[in-house]
Amino acid sequence: MSERVEAALEGAISQAGGWGSPPKLAAALRYAVFPGGHRIRPSLTLAVARACGDRDPAAADAAAVAVELLHCASLAHDDLPCFDDADLRRGKPSLHKEFGEPLAVLAGDALIVLAFETLARAMTRRPSRLATMIGIVGAAVGAPRGIVAGQAWECEPSAPLSEYQRAKTGALFVGAAQAGALAAGMDPTPWRALGDKIGEAYQVADDLRDVLCDAEELGKPVGQDAARLRPNAAAQLGVGGAKARLVELVEGAVSAIPACPGETELRKLIKMQTLAFFPKQLAAAAA
Amino acid sequence: MSERVEAALEGAISQAGGWGSPPKLAAALRYAVFPGGHRIRPSLTLAVARACGDRDPAAADAAAVAVELLHCASLAHDDLPCFDDADLRRGKPSLHKEFGEPLAVLAGDALIVLAFETLARAMTRRPSRLATMIGIVGAAVGAPRGIVAGQAWECEPSAPLSEYQRAKTGALFVGAAQAGALAAGMDPTPWRALGDKIGEAYQVADDLRDVLCDAEELGKPVGQDAARLRPNAAAQLGVGGAKARLVELVEGAVSAIPACPGETELRKLIKMQTLAFFPKQLAAAAA
Repeated sequence: MSERVEAALEGAISQAGGWGSPPKLAAALRYAVFPGGHRIRPSLTLAVARACGDRDPAAADAAAVAVELLHCASLAHDDLPCFDDADLRRGKPSLHKEFGEPLAVLAGDALIVLAFETLARAMTRRPSRLATMIGIVGAAVGAPRGIVAGQAWECEPSAPLSEYQRAKTGALFVGAAQAGALAAGMDPTPWRALGDKIGEAYQVADDLRDVLCDAEELGKPVGQDAARLRPNAAAQLGVGGAKARLVELVEGAVSAIPACPGETELRKLIKMQTLAFFPKQLAAAAA
Repeated sequence: MSERVEAALEGAISQAGGWGSPPKLAAALRYAVFPGGHRIRPSLTLAVARACGDRDPAAADAAAVAVELLHCASLAHDDLPCFDDADLRRGKPSLHKEFGEPLAVLAGDALIVLAFETLARAMTRRPSRLATMIGIVGAAVGAPRGIVAGQAWECEPSAPLSEYQRAKTGALFVGAAQAGALAAGMDPTPWRALGDKIGEAYQVADDLRDVLCDAEELGKPVGQDAARLRPNAAAQLGVGGAKARLVELVEGAVSAIPACPGETELRKLIKMQTLAFFPKQLAAAAA
């Protein structure tokens, strides 16, 4: 499945950086997307599509690509000096450190556009689903409650914690799950809960990582939440409490899987994949 | 027609800044879009749709909105300190001066997403056109040859002039014209030349303005091209030469209008509207 994600991403990035593109922009787009992290979100999209019968693999690939491109765009902009001012991302210099701020802003913009173009290009044969797909993906990333809104809550003097985390992290997981179901021709509505739970689990795991890991394992600076006064589940619940919450959320995610042809296999996969984003020292205990 | 553009934009911005939105993001989105400039691009979209029979006004409105939101997004990002570092836009503080850099980046991102969401929402009843519409709009704004690419050419040591200007300015005019035709159910292909000519005319007019106007008329700083070593038609051809080129381009635009039911009226309108973006001291002479 991971080769399928990489191949689909390669197709999209080659198109955007193809003939006529300014060379540095093409290079920045590639740098922002390859090599990737765990590709958790597009893997979720493909896993759900497969569990739903994967009747339109091209649409599922496009949905996975869109979700990952939007994630990469959010990282590129989130790392900018005016936000997290991060020098490192995935163990290498962040996009603006490598290409400068202008190209980091532009590459992020281009990735957002490319996500929607990719969906449109893949879904011409089933156009009736395209509008719903764009609605799902747009809600996950835009205003009022997608990633952009999550980031924007950091600009407010105070933010409702659950809305902040739902927008910043949960929304794209919800979108990833729903997009996979829709790509396979199923009603996306009941897949919201799965995305929600995985998103929350991922947030808690990320909070634990920020507290527990060293920068080498994480590929980016640690202790950023405390430094930026951002809420952190491990700080609020203690490491033990956060770990218990994480296990509970993974169980909740598995139980939230709607009835579908590949339900049993998907349960196993979700359990396995969510373990992949546990901090190393917790993964063994939780397995 | 101008009320129609404003009402359609109002609908989109209210949706994005609606319930659940971080308040400053909602305010920044509104600030980035209202009050507008001349709304030349969405007016072109509606004018073309009307000349083609305007058989789906909701789709035409959505296309006009998408084009203008993408234009506003490009201004928000283009004004950032890492690009033009502009303090003024449309006679008021630029978005990042008013809301800070993070919200200016995020509002731009959200406007891009909103453009595609608006198209999807309006075109559910004619889904077969939606994929083509997204292709047109995406090409106008993304990589390899849309606005983002135009901006990215400024990051290269040297840029092919016509490709740079076509991407930075022309592409969205092409998109605006083609989107209007498609929204009305016509083949968008023959509308490229009209968009191309208007885009080039607009670029020459903008270059003349940069040389001739005072900051008060322009609503933003003048002399920016010379300061940034950017190519400028008025500098290259002289003011007289640039003015002659501008008149020639407007005539070329009018002649490029494809056969359509409202051809005669559209010719008049294009002539009139292109005059609106001439610098004041040239408009009288060119009329």
